Amino acid sequence: MAMLLREALGEGLRRARTEQGRTLREVSTDARVSLGYLSEVERGQKEASSELLAAICDALDVEIADLLLDAGNAMRPIDSLASTTVVIPAPTADRRDATALAAA
Amino acid sequence: MAMLLREALGEGLRRARTEQGRTLREVSTDARVSLGYLSEVERGQKEASSELLAAICDALDVEIADLLLDAGNAMRPIDSLASTTVVIPAPTADRRDATALAAA
Repeated sequence: MAMLLREALGEGLRRARTEQGRTLREVSTDARVSLGYLSEVERGQKEASSELLAAICDALDVEIADLLLDAGNAMRPIDSLASTTVVIPAPTADRRDATALAAA
Repeated sequence: MAMLLREALGEGLRRARTEQGRTLREVSTDARVSLGYLSEVERGQKEASSELLAAICDALDVEIADLLLDAGNAMRPIDSLASTTVVIPAPTADRRDATALAAA
């Protein structure tokens, strides 16, 4: 089964929070949502309403546009990458590097 | 008030449907959702669950990643555009073209 939007959004929110070294409690307080709700949203178990998603992004100081971009990339099917992604090779990349990138 | 996610997603879904010249009835039948539900989702009045959003995108043959990208762009604050958007000018663009693009 393909990744669901709430799972991709939850992963992005959790990544943003942990990168900032903040706890669920801190962010849930700032966003005025319950700790349990935020935890379920991060694990992709609950749909965040648009209003609460905006509040959580605000508490994390994350642009929702960037969260959506990340979520979209996480959800993009592998077989569509060739036709939708522009790859700009590094000037110094040799063939072995390119192969490693393609397999990543 | 800033645009909400459900409003941005609804606009994108409606644009995809109308560009294909399809009716609410056709797409709702293909996505196995009610016509009223699809209409409310398109108008940003109802949150689509992740599962139903996936079904609607499938019925429209639209990648959810592309829908999210469009929604993110629609929601991005104007004052963040300068620092987050990479603009690649067309080789033949003159200054008048560039001004028209900037105003679009």
